[in-house]
Amino acid sequence: MKVGIINVTGYGGSELARLLYHHKGVHLTSVTGRSAVGERLGQFFPHLADFDLTITEELGEVDLAFSALPHAASAAALLPLIQRGVKVVDISADFRLKDVAEYESWYGVKHPAPQLLPESVYGLTELNRAAVAKARIVANPGCYATSAILALAPALKAGIIEPDVIIDSKSGVSGAGRALSLTTHYCEVNENVSAYSLAGHRHLPEIVQELKALTGGKALSVTFVPHLIPMTRGILSTCYARLAPGTIASGDKAKAEITDLYRDFYRGEPFVRLTPAPPQTKQTWGNNLCLVHPTVDMRTGRLVVISCLDNLVKGAAGQAIQNMNLLLGFAETTALEAAAVYP
Amino acid sequence: MKVGIINVTGYGGSELARLLYHHKGVHLTSVTGRSAVGERLGQFFPHLADFDLTITEELGEVDLAFSALPHAASAAALLPLIQRGVKVVDISADFRLKDVAEYESWYGVKHPAPQLLPESVYGLTELNRAAVAKARIVANPGCYATSAILALAPALKAGIIEPDVIIDSKSGVSGAGRALSLTTHYCEVNENVSAYSLAGHRHLPEIVQELKALTGGKALSVTFVPHLIPMTRGILSTCYARLAPGTIASGDKAKAEITDLYRDFYRGEPFVRLTPAPPQTKQTWGNNLCLVHPTVDMRTGRLVVISCLDNLVKGAAGQAIQNMNLLLGFAETTALEAAAVYP
Amino acid sequence: MKVGIINVTGYGGSELARLLYHHKGVHLTSVTGRSAVGERLGQFFPHLADFDLTITEELGEVDLAFSALPHAASAAALLPLIQRGVKVVDISADFRLKDVAEYESWYGVKHPAPQLLPESVYGLTELNRAAVAKARIVANPGCYATSAILALAPALKAGIIEPDVIIDSKSGVSGAGRALSLTTHYCEVNENVSAYSLAGHRHLPEIVQELKALTGGKALSVTFVPHLIPMTRGILSTCYARLAPGTIASGDKAKAEITDLYRDFYRGEPFVRLTPAPPQTKQTWGNNLCLVHPTVDMRTGRLVVISCLDNLVKGAAGQAIQNMNLLLGFAETTALEAAAVYP
Amino acid sequence: MKVGIINVTGYGGSELARLLYHHKGVHLTSVTGRSAVGERLGQFFPHLADFDLTITEELGEVDLAFSALPHAASAAALLPLIQRGVKVVDISADFRLKDVAEYESWYGVKHPAPQLLPESVYGLTELNRAAVAKARIVANPGCYATSAILALAPALKAGIIEPDVIIDSKSGVSGAGRALSLTTHYCEVNENVSAYSLAGHRHLPEIVQELKALTGGKALSVTFVPHLIPMTRGILSTCYARLAPGTIASGDKAKAEITDLYRDFYRGEPFVRLTPAPPQTKQTWGNNLCLVHPTVDMRTGRLVVISCLDNLVKGAAGQAIQNMNLLLGFAETTALEAAAVYP
Repeated sequence: MKVGIINVTGYGGSELARLLYHHKGVHLTSVTGRSAVGERLGQFFPHLADFDLTITEELGEVDLAFSALPHAASAAALLPLIQRGVKVVDISADFRLKDVAEYESWYGVKHPAPQLLPESVYGLTELNRAAVAKARIVANPGCYATSAILALAPALKAGIIEPDVIIDSKSGVSGAGRALSLTTHYCEVNENVSAYSLAGHRHLPEIVQELKALTGGKALSVTFVPHLIPMTRGILSTCYARLAPGTIASGDKAKAEITDLYRDFYRGEPFVRLTPAPPQTKQTWGNNLCLVHPTVDMRTGRLVVISCLDNLVKGAAGQAIQNMNLLLGFAETTALEAAAVYP
Repeated sequence: MKVGIINVTGYGGSELARLLYHHKGVHLTSVTGRSAVGERLGQFFPHLADFDLTITEELGEVDLAFSALPHAASAAALLPLIQRGVKVVDISADFRLKDVAEYESWYGVKHPAPQLLPESVYGLTELNRAAVAKARIVANPGCYATSAILALAPALKAGIIEPDVIIDSKSGVSGAGRALSLTTHYCEVNENVSAYSLAGHRHLPEIVQELKALTGGKALSVTFVPHLIPMTRGILSTCYARLAPGTIASGDKAKAEITDLYRDFYRGEPFVRLTPAPPQTKQTWGNNLCLVHPTVDMRTGRLVVISCLDNLVKGAAGQAIQNMNLLLGFAETTALEAAAVYP
Repeated sequence: MKVGIINVTGYGGSELARLLYHHKGVHLTSVTGRSAVGERLGQFFPHLADFDLTITEELGEVDLAFSALPHAASAAALLPLIQRGVKVVDISADFRLKDVAEYESWYGVKHPAPQLLPESVYGLTELNRAAVAKARIVANPGCYATSAILALAPALKAGIIEPDVIIDSKSGVSGAGRALSLTTHYCEVNENVSAYSLAGHRHLPEIVQELKALTGGKALSVTFVPHLIPMTRGILSTCYARLAPGTIASGDKAKAEITDLYRDFYRGEPFVRLTPAPPQTKQTWGNNLCLVHPTVDMRTGRLVVISCLDNLVKGAAGQAIQNMNLLLGFAETTALEAAAVYP
Repeated sequence: MKVGIINVTGYGGSELARLLYHHKGVHLTSVTGRSAVGERLGQFFPHLADFDLTITEELGEVDLAFSALPHAASAAALLPLIQRGVKVVDISADFRLKDVAEYESWYGVKHPAPQLLPESVYGLTELNRAAVAKARIVANPGCYATSAILALAPALKAGIIEPDVIIDSKSGVSGAGRALSLTTHYCEVNENVSAYSLAGHRHLPEIVQELKALTGGKALSVTFVPHLIPMTRGILSTCYARLAPGTIASGDKAKAEITDLYRDFYRGEPFVRLTPAPPQTKQTWGNNLCLVHPTVDMRTGRLVVISCLDNLVKGAAGQAIQNMNLLLGFAETTALEAAAVYP
């Protein structure tokens, strides 16, 4: 099977290539990149020197295409591919939101292909595995969204928390991409931490959309505050919600019950693991795991769930390949088995 | 006036010395340190080479003593000094909690001088300025506590939020001190973020004690989760609480009202500043400022307040000198005027 | 085939385990670690949770053993294994120096098994491939030594430089190991760079021993200065030597001739690559490559060679597995094919 | 006295403002910045909020002007000021090289004011103090040049080394400025080290010019290789040269003689200090010191001198103020007395 990457020249695109390098079932045969047409992939990215590929303007014939283009550009580029039957996994936000008005209000552009939204599948694999396997269009989730939804899904589905949650996320810088900005200048990031997008981050609507689906569409209030911290890879989300009275044992038993509930929810999942101690992003560095640790603040009766992942792997390229594996019928873990690189 | 530092050999102690170097009203005449008795201060800490001081086992005669010893050891060392009339500013936790049982339960040791607790003053200068000025014993607040209390005090005092708050703090590594531990090994911290002390951090009881005092002693529920992030200095706290219905305008006016309320609360304060944009720890690197930014998550009606400071300055040594200035009658800003070192 | 790791609990040992995880020809069946006997490997190192192994005090039956013990302890632990026919790859320095007096003077201990030195093979694979393949005892090179020798070997062997070289190396912190020391405290390393071991670093004698072997035993003068820089993984060595008059073309042709010479020297090597631009450690992060870039300072007629590698992979565990592959008859690149993790 | 900063919006300009904040003899009354005309200084740089200044397009009336513009633009902007009698300290390279052809060849532009080169003074204060005090135009040295020249000047002047030196420098990222470039993107710098400008860095000709002046104009061969390492501030230069036969005692006495020679050379200097151990950039973080540590590699008879400084202070803004102090008749250390910020 042949696969291609549209816009390989960013961090999402190059991470796709890195992970596909050892995939036994597919060949990466075509990569595009607007700023580097004609360059060898290994010239542009020395760590990808083993690929015998030249960056082109247009994607060659492939069975499946990943897009790592920015939003709007992505749907526009994918539309003709979808029309001629190529399966697509879109790392951009274009096919994540079901409500086109919501999309246009958050992203400030007209959607290039609203007619395709109904059939696209939100590719948070653990929640939508069956639909992904049958999809033509997979909307790969945002990195923050993946960590937040996996942290809260078991509790919301089980109805053990009030439908009013806070997600406080801490992210490394690669989530901001390879484009130049003062925000990603080394001297501005190093020895620094700050919150941003206080008026609303673009991953919020997809978090709400997916969490609401788990609560049977009941009202749900979500406060999400992302923070930038001085590291390259990794997201850690700390999620807070009040336990719903009467839904869970009180006292020390609450913790055990909740751990069981989370364990059951994720039983058999190859990439979601409960950890006995608070997880650290370093434990997922370079691999496709999402680590989840639910606990209860006994003084206040509040559920606290911490989740972490590598934003470029489970938060982007790794989950995209996980989805591709399902789409193309490979074992879900193919090319994603590497242990985290520690330290 | 002569001042001394007990246990100058840690990060709190050395930061006191650094800041005192240019104080025009006091002379640092004596420094102790168990592991380095007999060494020149400038030999132990090359950045303090301009001090003509030798590290001793016992403190010489001073008018005021800072203690940067660990808890329990600190009160034990300060007791004889207090008895002979030396004023003290204690950077340890020993004199922070008014309730000795609370202290002994959180710190797991017998308090060495419980009889002194009633007269000690919790030295969060902005809240207790008058008392500090007349004190013999100032309990310098914890670094997390300083950032959290300054973020929430105006809102709690005004009664505009529900008495149920979440404090999500992100701290650099120097807060963990200079002692050796795997937790502070470079390779374990770099490219990593994690939550810790989920069962309860020792700064929680002082946060609760001081915030409760502002609410008139009403019940108050506080969830506090500290995180370690890869930087040396700095704490950023993101605080969440629901607005109390009917206490504040709705819609866009809420933000403006709250900003006004905070501005009034901190009017004239030399070291607390409201920022128009979300503040960054780098903007306080090496100086005594606490930056505060209140806002409202309009979708959920939740107050979000972000505060940041340098944990070794406003979170420890700087605030200790601010308190010393009050105790000894100097202008409060003496020796604390430096701008942050950026970038 | 069964392999074991003696002292898996440090960074060298855990990196061996990480890389062996996907080796198709060997099974890691036994791991020891003095401080963690009885713990599950995945409990001690969460990133190794997929191994079904418990840390023991003594190594079980294996066909080949890696030792990641400190020097002296390593030879002592390996001696009985060697005597009963187990092949060994020693990551410590114990079997690197052929001259026992040299060893004892640099390491300050009596050698536990000097009788084995004559048959041990210095496992810089590219230079000693044939000998490694037939060895019982492979002395895995030091991380600095690997980068320095690979940078200088082609030029010294060809006789195009004066036998007087300078090696200025910059290393990440993981080379100092997982043991606790103020030198590796985050706050002491971050935003800092320093030279160390100016009186002579322990990797110097092995560098001299191996480079001398390439010059036919002629006198060779080597100045080696290591530096610690704020990163976890990576070594970059900048090497300087005067071109020997008359051995190489002058002017611009010199560069081309030298590049050809290096290219010929490393032709076919899977893990040593010449780079067209100055290489960066990030291009080797987590993989087994050593990147080499020779150039000429045209103003002074000086050869400058820059090499870089991941100190825990090609500088330790990766090269150890490369050697094991040869010893056990596997393809040399088995389990070492991963691309560098970038960014 | 009134001073102004042309182009305050970069790291050099903002550091000038930070340090001038507490200068008792001068007032910063005017700051320009092309991209931020009309903004308040404290809006553009929150750490400078205490200045009551607005960024303008043209400099107001001042007694002395600093220029932090890029080369060529700097001389062009300073020319009219010099003509009307304003003293200038130029942080750019425009007035450093005495040979206009050399300047034009290295910088690739026509010099905007070659007629002023003869009277400009190279402001490495320690070497040219008397000339600086009487100058109209001070060319503030490059950051690398300052560290390299201070490391080698005593040895070259005394004639104890061969006139063939190697300078291997490691620099933090702020030296590359605040402008956007992939080279300074956090994700490209973090966990990375690389050499650059192997064909010749622009600080080389000024290093050669100034060092040659110390050797009486004799031939001098200099190889200079700069490296970028993951930190914000700091340069450490490791310098190598063979001891000239017969000029210095042999054996252990050599070190002591050289230390004495360096100590004599820098006796009384407020900002250059010999350190007993290898110095670390952190020991100069935020202050104006240059730490120097000469030693001898006893195995090879090679002098090794390590120097370090904060590239934005002694390497730029601090030295500029040191020069201003001389020009305007203030004590040389005015506003530069702060201890390094550690850790």
